[in-house]
Amino acid sequence: MSFDNINVPQKLVPDNYWQLGLAAQRPKKRGFKELLEKRKLPANGWPDEHIEELVHQIASLDSNNFPHKVGLGEREARITCRLVSRRHYNFGHGIGRSGDLLEAQPKAAGSTLLAHLTNALILDLMQGLGLPSCRGCFLVPMCTGMTITLCLQSLRKQRPHAKYVLWSRIDQKSCFKAITAAGLEPVIVPCLVQHQALSTDINAFQQQIEDLGAETILCLYTTTSCFAPRNSDSIVDIAKLAKRCDLPHLVNNAYGLQISTISRQLERAQRLGRIDYFVQSSDKNFLVPVGGAIVASFNQTLLHLVGSSYAGRASGSQTLDVFMTLLSLGRSGYHSLVQKREDNFNYLKEQLIAFAQSHGEQVIESRDNFISLAITLGTLCAATGQGSSITQLGSMLHMRGVSGVRVVIPGQKKTIDGHAFSDFGSHQTNLEIPYLTVAAALGITQEEIDKFFKIFHKCWTKFSQSLSENKTKQ
Amino acid sequence: MSFDNINVPQKLVPDNYWQLGLAAQRPKKRGFKELLEKRKLPANGWPDEHIEELVHQIASLDSNNFPHKVGLGEREARITCRLVSRRHYNFGHGIGRSGDLLEAQPKAAGSTLLAHLTNALILDLMQGLGLPSCRGCFLVPMCTGMTITLCLQSLRKQRPHAKYVLWSRIDQKSCFKAITAAGLEPVIVPCLVQHQALSTDINAFQQQIEDLGAETILCLYTTTSCFAPRNSDSIVDIAKLAKRCDLPHLVNNAYGLQISTISRQLERAQRLGRIDYFVQSSDKNFLVPVGGAIVASFNQTLLHLVGSSYAGRASGSQTLDVFMTLLSLGRSGYHSLVQKREDNFNYLKEQLIAFAQSHGEQVIESRDNFISLAITLGTLCAATGQGSSITQLGSMLHMRGVSGVRVVIPGQKKTIDGHAFSDFGSHQTNLEIPYLTVAAALGITQEEIDKFFKIFHKCWTKFSQSLSENKTKQ
Amino acid sequence: MSFDNINVPQKLVPDNYWQLGLAAQRPKKRGFKELLEKRKLPANGWPDEHIEELVHQIASLDSNNFPHKVGLGEREARITCRLVSRRHYNFGHGIGRSGDLLEAQPKAAGSTLLAHLTNALILDLMQGLGLPSCRGCFLVPMCTGMTITLCLQSLRKQRPHAKYVLWSRIDQKSCFKAITAAGLEPVIVPCLVQHQALSTDINAFQQQIEDLGAETILCLYTTTSCFAPRNSDSIVDIAKLAKRCDLPHLVNNAYGLQISTISRQLERAQRLGRIDYFVQSSDKNFLVPVGGAIVASFNQTLLHLVGSSYAGRASGSQTLDVFMTLLSLGRSGYHSLVQKREDNFNYLKEQLIAFAQSHGEQVIESRDNFISLAITLGTLCAATGQGSSITQLGSMLHMRGVSGVRVVIPGQKKTIDGHAFSDFGSHQTNLEIPYLTVAAALGITQEEIDKFFKIFHKCWTKFSQSLSENKTKQ
Amino acid sequence: MSFDNINVPQKLVPDNYWQLGLAAQRPKKRGFKELLEKRKLPANGWPDEHIEELVHQIASLDSNNFPHKVGLGEREARITCRLVSRRHYNFGHGIGRSGDLLEAQPKAAGSTLLAHLTNALILDLMQGLGLPSCRGCFLVPMCTGMTITLCLQSLRKQRPHAKYVLWSRIDQKSCFKAITAAGLEPVIVPCLVQHQALSTDINAFQQQIEDLGAETILCLYTTTSCFAPRNSDSIVDIAKLAKRCDLPHLVNNAYGLQISTISRQLERAQRLGRIDYFVQSSDKNFLVPVGGAIVASFNQTLLHLVGSSYAGRASGSQTLDVFMTLLSLGRSGYHSLVQKREDNFNYLKEQLIAFAQSHGEQVIESRDNFISLAITLGTLCAATGQGSSITQLGSMLHMRGVSGVRVVIPGQKKTIDGHAFSDFGSHQTNLEIPYLTVAAALGITQEEIDKFFKIFHKCWTKFSQSLSENKTKQ
Repeated sequence: MSFDNINVPQKLVPDNYWQLGLAAQRPKKRGFKELLEKRKLPANGWPDEHIEELVHQIASLDSNNFPHKVGLGEREARITCRLVSRRHYNFGHGIGRSGDLLEAQPKAAGSTLLAHLTNALILDLMQGLGLPSCRGCFLVPMCTGMTITLCLQSLRKQRPHAKYVLWSRIDQKSCFKAITAAGLEPVIVPCLVQHQALSTDINAFQQQIEDLGAETILCLYTTTSCFAPRNSDSIVDIAKLAKRCDLPHLVNNAYGLQISTISRQLERAQRLGRIDYFVQSSDKNFLVPVGGAIVASFNQTLLHLVGSSYAGRASGSQTLDVFMTLLSLGRSGYHSLVQKREDNFNYLKEQLIAFAQSHGEQVIESRDNFISLAITLGTLCAATGQGSSITQLGSMLHMRGVSGVRVVIPGQKKTIDGHAFSDFGSHQTNLEIPYLTVAAALGITQEEIDKFFKIFHKCWTKFSQSLSENKTKQ
Repeated sequence: MSFDNINVPQKLVPDNYWQLGLAAQRPKKRGFKELLEKRKLPANGWPDEHIEELVHQIASLDSNNFPHKVGLGEREARITCRLVSRRHYNFGHGIGRSGDLLEAQPKAAGSTLLAHLTNALILDLMQGLGLPSCRGCFLVPMCTGMTITLCLQSLRKQRPHAKYVLWSRIDQKSCFKAITAAGLEPVIVPCLVQHQALSTDINAFQQQIEDLGAETILCLYTTTSCFAPRNSDSIVDIAKLAKRCDLPHLVNNAYGLQISTISRQLERAQRLGRIDYFVQSSDKNFLVPVGGAIVASFNQTLLHLVGSSYAGRASGSQTLDVFMTLLSLGRSGYHSLVQKREDNFNYLKEQLIAFAQSHGEQVIESRDNFISLAITLGTLCAATGQGSSITQLGSMLHMRGVSGVRVVIPGQKKTIDGHAFSDFGSHQTNLEIPYLTVAAALGITQEEIDKFFKIFHKCWTKFSQSLSENKTKQ
Repeated sequence: MSFDNINVPQKLVPDNYWQLGLAAQRPKKRGFKELLEKRKLPANGWPDEHIEELVHQIASLDSNNFPHKVGLGEREARITCRLVSRRHYNFGHGIGRSGDLLEAQPKAAGSTLLAHLTNALILDLMQGLGLPSCRGCFLVPMCTGMTITLCLQSLRKQRPHAKYVLWSRIDQKSCFKAITAAGLEPVIVPCLVQHQALSTDINAFQQQIEDLGAETILCLYTTTSCFAPRNSDSIVDIAKLAKRCDLPHLVNNAYGLQISTISRQLERAQRLGRIDYFVQSSDKNFLVPVGGAIVASFNQTLLHLVGSSYAGRASGSQTLDVFMTLLSLGRSGYHSLVQKREDNFNYLKEQLIAFAQSHGEQVIESRDNFISLAITLGTLCAATGQGSSITQLGSMLHMRGVSGVRVVIPGQKKTIDGHAFSDFGSHQTNLEIPYLTVAAALGITQEEIDKFFKIFHKCWTKFSQSLSENKTKQ
Repeated sequence: MSFDNINVPQKLVPDNYWQLGLAAQRPKKRGFKELLEKRKLPANGWPDEHIEELVHQIASLDSNNFPHKVGLGEREARITCRLVSRRHYNFGHGIGRSGDLLEAQPKAAGSTLLAHLTNALILDLMQGLGLPSCRGCFLVPMCTGMTITLCLQSLRKQRPHAKYVLWSRIDQKSCFKAITAAGLEPVIVPCLVQHQALSTDINAFQQQIEDLGAETILCLYTTTSCFAPRNSDSIVDIAKLAKRCDLPHLVNNAYGLQISTISRQLERAQRLGRIDYFVQSSDKNFLVPVGGAIVASFNQTLLHLVGSSYAGRASGSQTLDVFMTLLSLGRSGYHSLVQKREDNFNYLKEQLIAFAQSHGEQVIESRDNFISLAITLGTLCAATGQGSSITQLGSMLHMRGVSGVRVVIPGQKKTIDGHAFSDFGSHQTNLEIPYLTVAAALGITQEEIDKFFKIFHKCWTKFSQSLSENKTKQ
C-alpha cells in the first residue's frame, strides 16, 4: 500500500509530523522501483522489513492470494497449514510452467516475476564478479549434480547420437552420478599427478576424442572447485580443445562463484575457447539452504534449451531464499563476503604451513586450488604402520565440533553405477601418503580457523600418543 | 527443554500452580515420544506451537546449529540472511547424502530424522488410504514429471538395453517430457474413444509389446488422475499385462492420493498384477507449495534404487512443508479433507449436469474420472461457426477470478521434443465437439462451486449474446 | 509499496497476467483508504496479511524506522533485541506525549495514527453495540482498576475539595483498591439482599449523600458486570440520582461491552441521568492479553481531562493488540462473538438449572446478571457440617482443567487498605448458604460447557462420597 | 521437549550421528537450568532460538495454553486474533493478581515465573552496575511518571497526613504531573544557577522542611538524569537530609541506569543517607519499546508496599520485552552497551566543544550531567535580536533526520495543573542565553554523532545566512 492518495485528517496526525513520515518512505519506494525496472542488484543491502514488504507484495499478485478467488482446477496452490503458508510468504505456485522453467505462469504473475527478477539479480552479480560476457543464468531448484544431469539431457537433444561424456576425474560421487543419471556413458580421464598435486590431463582428453571419434562424444565435462590436492581443471585449455573439436563443454563450477580467480578463468576460457554451460551450487555460493543450482551460459539460446528440459513446474522456495539473501547483502555485502573468504583462505594457508612445519609434514602445493588445502599425514602414517587407522583422527576432530575436514587414505575401492574407482577419495589411482583436507569456504571466520588449529593440535598430540602407547604394548 | 529436572523455587511460583503447569505438559510430551518411536501419523492434528517446537528441536540436532561449531568444509550450511534461516527453522543441510536421497548425513542428524520421519508418516497415511500393501515411499523435492524421469532412470539401470516407454496418451506436457528428459523413446498408445470419453486401449498396449519385443521395452507407463473426459487408465488391466510380460509398470498418480477409489485400484492392481512405482504430487495431495513428489512402491528394494539415482543432496524444504502439514491435519484432518472433496465432486457433478441441461449441452460420461468433469460446448460452437473463438469463454471466466477451467477445442497441433500431437489437449486425434473441464480438487469449497456457477452462467449469457450480435453485424 | 507507478517489462511478466495481478490488489487498497479516511470498523474481518501490511506501513512512519536517522535525544526508541522489535512490528515510541495520552508525538506519526485510529474503531464498534450517544473513548494501557483510579484522579482535579467515593459494594479487590490508590475515601454502600440475590440500594446512596453533603462527594461509583448472585448495579437509577444531585457518576463496566443489555442500559442511563465515565477491560471484551482498559464518555471534554491525567508516555502494545484484533474480526466477527456468548449463556443457564434440580440445589435468580450464575451448595454444606471444606470442590474442578469457577463460603474476613469486609467474596455481610459461580464470557464454546458438566458431576459425586465416608469414620 | 527419553531407532538416524546431535544440546540445557535455578543474568547473550524456546516453554505453563482446558470464568485469557497470540508467544494472563503486582496467579504459573525471573535478572544486573546493596526491584508496566505516582501513593498509605512533595525543579512535564496525578501538593524547590549550570539547592530544601514542618511532607523527590545544563540532583546530600529529618526520599532515575557514576552515587547516598525508592524507565535503559519502569529499593518491605498499590492485574508485555532483551544481551552485552555510551558521550563532548569554539559559542560546564550537553546560541541570538526565531534551528535539524535536540529560549511560560512555570524548559526563572541540548543515550553510535555535526554545521551556516539576509532586507 501507499499513503500517497490517502487523506489522513489533521486531527489524527498533525500535518507536519505526517509529511515527515511520508518523506521518509521515499528512499524505500525508489529502491523498489529501481529494482523492478532496472533489475540490478542494489549497491547496499536492504533492511529485513523492506525485503519482506516487497516479497509480500509480489506474492499478492499470485491467484491463490486473490480475495474471492474461485479455483476449479486440479492445482490451485491452496496451502492448508498456516505455518507453511507463512514461511513461504503465501507463495504456492512454484516457478515455470509444465515443461519449461523459464515460462510465465498465467495463474502466478508474482511467482513469475520473482523468478525472473532473481535470475536477473544473479546475472548482474555474476557479471560484476568477473564474468561480463555471461549472457544469462537461472536458478534450478535441484542440486548441482541433477542440474548437470539436466544440462546433459539438453545437450543430448542437440546431439542425439553422442553418448560419451569425457570427464576429468574428481572423486565426488554426485559429479559422476550426474552422468549416469542421464543414461550416458562416462569416460574417465585420469588427472596428471605431479608432486602429489593433481591437474587436468589435456593430452589424455585429446587422445580420447581421437580414439572415440568426436561425433560419439556428447561433451567435455570439467570441474573448477574441488578438494585439494586436486587442482581446478585447466578450463581454458579444455575450452580451446572443445572449440577446436567442435564439442560442447560443460563446467561444474559448484562452489566457484565465491572465488574471483575462477570467474575470470571462465570468462577467459569462453573468449579463447568454448563453454556451453557452467553450473554452480546456490547453497555454497549464496549461503542458503541446500537445494538449488544456477546454470549459466554465455549464450542465451543454449540456456533456454535447459529450461525447457525440466519436465514440470518447480519449487519456488530456493528462488525466494536467493532473492531475499541477495537483497539483504546487496552488491557490497556479497563482495565483502568474497573478500573475507579470500583473506581467510590465505590466513588458513599460512597457519597450515606453519602447523605442517612444526609437525614434520607439508602442505601439498596445489596452485590452482583457491579454496581447499591438503596437509600430509606422513609421520602419523609411518607411526601406525597402516594408513587406515588414521581416519580416526578425522573422527576425533568431528567429535570436537570440527566439521568438513576429510582424511584421505590409500586403498579405498568404490564402485559407482558399475564403474570401479581405486583409491577413491584421492582422485587418483596411486595415492601414497594419506592427507587431510581443509577448506576456507564463504562465511568462514578467522575465529573458526583459530579454534580449528587449537583442536587440531590437541587431537594430533593425543592421536600420536595413542599410537606410541599401542606400539609399546606390542 | 523440559522443566522436569529443574528446581524452580517455591518463592518464584507456588508449588501447586507449578505442578498444574507441569501436568499440562504431559500430553504434548507423550505425543512427541510416540511420534518419534512409532512413526505413525497422530490421530488428531497438533497445534502450531507443538509443531514448531518439535521442528526447532529437530533442527538443533544439525551441526550448523551447534554452538561453537568450527566449519572447515566446502559446505557448512551457513545461512547468512536471517529471514531465510528463520523461514527454514535453521535447517540448511537438505536431505540425503551426495548420490542417495535416503542416506543419513553425518553433519545433519536432524535433517536425516526429519526426512525419514516424514516419509514414515506419508507411508502410514497411504496405507490407511486403501494401500495397505504399500511398502515404502519417499518425498523427492522435484516435481512429479522429474520424479517420473528419476524412476525411468532407475529402471534403465535395471534394464540397460530397453529404450521404449509405452505410454497411454494424456495431453499434459510434463507427463510426456518425463520420458524424453530421461533420453528414452516414447511409444504413444492412443486411448479408446467411446461416446466422447477416453479409456485405456489394452489391446494396443499388447500389440506394441509384441511388435517391439518385450526386451526393448523399459516399462509401461499409465496415468490415474487426469482431465475429463479422459478416464483414469485401466491400471488393473495394465498391471496384469505387465506381470504377464514381465515388464515394469510405472504409474503417474499425480493427484490420485486424494481419491480413495484410485488408491484401492492401485492396491488391487498390485495384487493381481504388477506395479513398480507410483508417483504422486505433494502439492496437489497435501496442499503445500509446488515442488515435491512422492514416489511409492510395493517393494522396498525397488524403492531404494530410485533414491540412489538422485545425483546429489536435495532440498529439505518440501519435506518440512509436508511434515508440518501432516502434523497439523492429523489422520482425521486428512481424511476429512478427502471426504469433503468427494462430497464436493458429487455436488459439482450434479450442478454441472443441471447447468448442461438448461443450456442445451451435456456432461460427458467419464465413469473412471473422479475428479474432473467435461461439459460440451456444442451449441456455442454451432453459433460461432468456428471453435477457436470459444477459448474466449475461458478468458472471460479467468478475468472474473475463476481459475483452473480449460476450454478444449479441435485443431490444436503441438510438437513436443520432436513428437507431433494433433488435437493437443484433448488426448485424442479426432476431437469433434469442444468442451470445458472443471475439477473438484482437494480443498475446494462448496462456496467456490456456487460462485463458479453464477459466474459461468453470466459469462455464458454474455458470450452467447456477443455471438449473436456478431452474426447480426455480418 | 504499490506497483502502480512501476513499469515491469513484458519480458518479465506478460502484460495480461500482470494486469490480472494488479486488479486483484484493488479491494485491499480500497479497504486501506476507507479505514484511514472514514475510521470505521470494516464490515468483515481482514486476512492476516492485510493487517500486517498496514501495521508495518504505519510503523514505518515513526522516526525510529527512518533510514539514516540521527538520534541525539535521551529517548530514541532504539530496540536492541531483534525478537522484540519484530514482535512490536518496530513500533517503539508508545502512545501519547509526556503528560497526555491523546497528544500527537512529533517523533512518531505512525504511533500517533495507530492510537487515534484504534480509538476511532473502538468508538465505532461501541456506538453500534447500543451506545449511539457515546462521544469518545480511548484505550489506556493499564488495567481496569488503575484506569478507574485515573478517572478518579481527573475528577479530583475538577472537584478538589471532595474526597468521598460512594461505592456499591462488589467483592473484587481491584474495584475497591482503585479508590484507595487515588488517595480517596471509599464509602461502602451495601447491596440489598433479596432471595439470595443482591442489587443496588438506591436509598442508601441517597441517604449517604444527604449525610455527607454532596460537596464532599467526589462521585458515585457503580459496577455493571459482576459475579452472580450480585446483579449489575441499577445504573439508570443511580444515574438519575447523580443528575439530581449534580454529582459525577463513574461506571465500572469491566466486562460489560460483551453484553448488549448492559450497553443499552448505559445509553438509557445517560439519557435519563448522568454518567461521566464508563470503563471496560480490553482483554475481557476484545480477547487480547491482559493490560488495557477503555475509558469512554458521552462527553468529549470530560474524556480529554482523563487523557491529560496520565503522567507520561504510555505503552502502545495494547493498542496494537486491539487494532489487529478488531481488523481481524470486523464488525460481523465481533457481533457474532457477542451473539454466541449470549446463546452460550442461555445454554449454560439451562444446563445449570437442570443440574441443580437433579442434585437438590437451586440456581439463584439474579435477573440483572447476564454473564455469571450461582448455584447453591446447600446439600453439600449440610453434609459437611461446616462450609469451609467445600472450597475443596473448587480445587477438584481446577485440578481437572476447569478454571474460573469460584466456591464462595460464609465467614471469610478480609481487610483491604484498612477497610474490613466480612463474608468477603459474597458482596454481603450475612451469607448463609455457600454457592459456586460460573460464567459464560466472550469466547466460551458449547463444547466447554458440556465438558464442564461432565467434570462437575464427577467431582460432585466424588466429593459427596468422601463426605459420607468421613462421616462413617467419625 | 527433550530427546533424552526417546528411543529413536538406528534405522532412522545412525547412532553416532544421533549422539553427536544430543551432545550439542547440553550447553543449552545447562543454560536453561542455571537461569531458572540461580536467576542470574547469563554472562553472554543467548541466540534467538534459545530465547524463543524458553519463552514458549514458560508460556505453556499458563492455563490458557493447556490442551482441553475448560474456561468458566469471566477472564480466561482467550486470544482470538492469531497475530496477537503469536506476537505474545501465547501469554495472555498478564502479571500479578488483582491488587498486587508481585503476587502469583493460580491460572498462570508461566506468567508468574516470567515476571519473577525478569525481576531477578534486572536485580542481578543492577547489583553488578554499582548497586550491590539494592535489595529488590520490579518492572511496572507503566511509564516512569505513573510509576512515581504509584510510589507516592504507596508512601501516602504510610504517611496519610502528609501532603507536600518537595521537588527539585526539572522541566519535564511528566516528572511534575506524577505529583499532581497522585493528588498531592508539589512544592517546587528552584535550582541554584552558577555559570549557567543548575544544581540542587540543599539549603532551600532544608528551609522548606522547617517552614512546612516535616510531618506535613510526604517525601523529598529528586532527579538524576536530565537535560543539561541542569545537573543531576545532589542525591547524596538530599539523602543525608532525608535521613536526618526522617523523611522518605524518592529518586527519579529515569535514564540513570546506563550511567555508572549515577549508580554508584545512589549506592553511596543510601549508605550515608536515605533513599526509599528509585525509579527508572525500561525503554531508555533496556532499549525496549516505551511502556515500563523499574521501581527499586534498598529495602524489600518497602518495595512490596508499592507492588500492592497497583489496583489490578497488569500487562506482561513489557516484562517479556525486557526478559528477551536481557537474555539476548547477556551481562557482557549490556556492559558493552554502557561502555560504548560513555565513550560516545566523551566523543560527543569533545566534538561539541570544538564546534562551539569554531562558532563563537561555548559548551556550558555541567559537571554532574553525564548524558546531556548544552551549547549556547549566543551569537545567533545576538544576530536575530530576539530569541524566539532561534527555535527554527531545531526544526531545520529535525527536518534533516536529527531527532532529540532541543532549542531552549527565554520567555516560555507554562502552567501545569495550576502551577505556573516561567522560562519553562530551562529549569530556571531567568534564562539569559538560549542554548541547544544534545544527548548521548544508550545505543547511540559514533556514526550518528559524525552525521549530526555535518548536518548541524550545514544548518547553522544556512540559518546564519538567512539572518544576515533578513537584516539586509530590513
